[in-house]
Amino acid sequence: MGVAPSSPHPAPDEALARLREHRPLVQCVTNAVVTGFTANALLALGATPAMVDLPGEAGAFAAVADGSLVNVGTPHAEQRDGAREVAAASRAWVLDPVAVGALPVRTALARELLAAGPAVVRGNASEVMALAGAGQGGRGVDALHGTDAARHVAEELARTSGAVVAVSGEVDLVTDGTTALRVHGGSELLTRVTGGGCSLGATTAAFLGVCAPLPAAVAAALVHKLAAERAAATAAGPGSFAVAFLDALASLTPDDVGAVAASRVVEAQQGARP
Amino acid sequence: MGVAPSSPHPAPDEALARLREHRPLVQCVTNAVVTGFTANALLALGATPAMVDLPGEAGAFAAVADGSLVNVGTPHAEQRDGAREVAAASRAWVLDPVAVGALPVRTALARELLAAGPAVVRGNASEVMALAGAGQGGRGVDALHGTDAARHVAEELARTSGAVVAVSGEVDLVTDGTTALRVHGGSELLTRVTGGGCSLGATTAAFLGVCAPLPAAVAAALVHKLAAERAAATAAGPGSFAVAFLDALASLTPDDVGAVAASRVVEAQQGARP
Amino acid sequence: MGVAPSSPHPAPDEALARLREHRPLVQCVTNAVVTGFTANALLALGATPAMVDLPGEAGAFAAVADGSLVNVGTPHAEQRDGAREVAAASRAWVLDPVAVGALPVRTALARELLAAGPAVVRGNASEVMALAGAGQGGRGVDALHGTDAARHVAEELARTSGAVVAVSGEVDLVTDGTTALRVHGGSELLTRVTGGGCSLGATTAAFLGVCAPLPAAVAAALVHKLAAERAAATAAGPGSFAVAFLDALASLTPDDVGAVAASRVVEAQQGARP
Repeated sequence: MGVAPSSPHPAPDEALARLREHRPLVQCVTNAVVTGFTANALLALGATPAMVDLPGEAGAFAAVADGSLVNVGTPHAEQRDGAREVAAASRAWVLDPVAVGALPVRTALARELLAAGPAVVRGNASEVMALAGAGQGGRGVDALHGTDAARHVAEELARTSGAVVAVSGEVDLVTDGTTALRVHGGSELLTRVTGGGCSLGATTAAFLGVCAPLPAAVAAALVHKLAAERAAATAAGPGSFAVAFLDALASLTPDDVGAVAASRVVEAQQGARP
Repeated sequence: MGVAPSSPHPAPDEALARLREHRPLVQCVTNAVVTGFTANALLALGATPAMVDLPGEAGAFAAVADGSLVNVGTPHAEQRDGAREVAAASRAWVLDPVAVGALPVRTALARELLAAGPAVVRGNASEVMALAGAGQGGRGVDALHGTDAARHVAEELARTSGAVVAVSGEVDLVTDGTTALRVHGGSELLTRVTGGGCSLGATTAAFLGVCAPLPAAVAAALVHKLAAERAAATAAGPGSFAVAFLDALASLTPDDVGAVAASRVVEAQQGARP
Repeated sequence: MGVAPSSPHPAPDEALARLREHRPLVQCVTNAVVTGFTANALLALGATPAMVDLPGEAGAFAAVADGSLVNVGTPHAEQRDGAREVAAASRAWVLDPVAVGALPVRTALARELLAAGPAVVRGNASEVMALAGAGQGGRGVDALHGTDAARHVAEELARTSGAVVAVSGEVDLVTDGTTALRVHGGSELLTRVTGGGCSLGATTAAFLGVCAPLPAAVAAALVHKLAAERAAATAAGPGSFAVAFLDALASLTPDDVGAVAASRVVEAQQGARP
């Protein structure tokens, strides 16, 4: 691949190889709907999940975890305090602004957390636009906007916040404000399973344990899309798809990822703004 | 069919067709055990779930959701306040009185919520009887009584509360206090999976987004029974049944439902009380 | 068998037969990650789960349940009070000290609960050692120590606490401080699924409803290992393994268990300490 093993900017296949070797310890402060699926996705991928979100424990744990996720999907009072501890103590964490926009508690929390400096912000187009103050948010966890509609806002958000911004959708967009990469692939079935997006935030946090934010977000997006494709090939519906998706996260090899990375991860051209 | 497309009283097949077209936004204030399965059941069926139960968000969200569910299975303090917001703000919501009877916190909450006017009350026979003050409740979430034992109580509860009352069991009973319908079918395996009943409350809320309470409760009951039958035909046990049940919720077509609705949904005769 | 049907010390196959007949009512005060999987494991096995953890309800429910589980994996403030009610009211309960050691809130809670007299303590080697004050705990829910490394500590903990101590790992160890039994078998895939260990705490509580603590812990460990082996034989990865594990819990018969119990459950020799 032309990248030294110690580089913080590995290609996605090398990022996966590192993750499998190091089994990063990933803390999740996440919503009540997807805790089980998220932990299973991390275990399947090869990481070590720990759902430590309690005030008085979350901060100390963040300081030793290899990566942390803060997802504001069901931000009850105690968990909001746990989230603040993580934001203050973690070296490398992902903010997932689930359904921000019209809902006031999570929107205020997400903006407060954004100011604390996440390494990556991951959301769908509507969530990223709403977090940046550029839209009204989606319909629950559904995006009303396509990824490309959010590109300008995502780049601006990356520049002002210092975070890598990852916008997921039919095509994913990952940007640090200077470079913007599109990640192609995936399956529509992933939108028919709860936790598809939320688990992507968690696997991004896992990759933060083995590389820098931009390659971490790209590797996570690509691995999810490839696992979704593999699962969709055998699934009879959304139930069997979710099961096969976990199997695919476990069976995907660095070689599988390396074989398609160049064609699936493509730099977005400067003039191609909508 | 004989029912105009705009009628609030569609047959079950037309109700399902409408649901697939409109993808109703369904708010769930539900218990911690079944959040993931419930969201997946709604997604599989074709609805758009959102688990917004936080005080300060739940009421505002209820006002824009197409239907809401309030399930009192694990009613922690914050969620009780969220539930009260939904009851005050929603136009169309389902009350699921999980395990009411001997357990005092949820029993008091469920009676308070009942007074706020749900469109549908959905429970097993023991829960419906306990909510109405006519029994001691079940054994955890198990019903100790058959559906028919609850018929008189359910009809009386419907008349006094103004809600449609749906009693689930081997045969489901749905009544508005005047008409009582039995819905036949299903599989015993659905009782071996957690969330089988709770997800029925959620899909009833989804149907409330496209039709009136009585046809909504009938359509949800019938769709669950048909999906359970389809899943049981291939399942090797309760684990694979739960997966196949989600696949079946997605694959069931309005034609599948229409082909059996007349034989499965049968008016209960007046003199047939136990 | 040689054990009378009424004996509190049945062999594992008879314990399973009793469980299937009596369908014990099992209360779970457990963490937010595994509630659904745990309830499904209990239902698959043949028990009746009820996730009643609310202060004001948990104690009264514990008094009527056949067995209770207190798992400290995500011990939020309300649930801590619920756990205390269970410890005070239950006749037969299991303490699962998830990730105790460095995390202060759960560690203090687990030690307080231990003093209240659980019938069984179930954890991995690192958790048991940390609970006893003999180690720093694991890495999240991962054990850093093997079962045998914890044997001396487990036996001492059993003697001082009066609880049966069950240490799960590649080989499980169950001891009342006098007798120590090793339970062999299982699959590595069970460590790739969240809730594998936590559900073992719940099934142990289910067996407490039909027999004494030592045979309950042995029966639960053996049934989990046999179900895991059966599931691993057909699984394509951790997703399909979790599904097949639930199917296997349901399909395992007392005869299946009886056929291997003598070779799988072996008394640990006195001099064999590491």
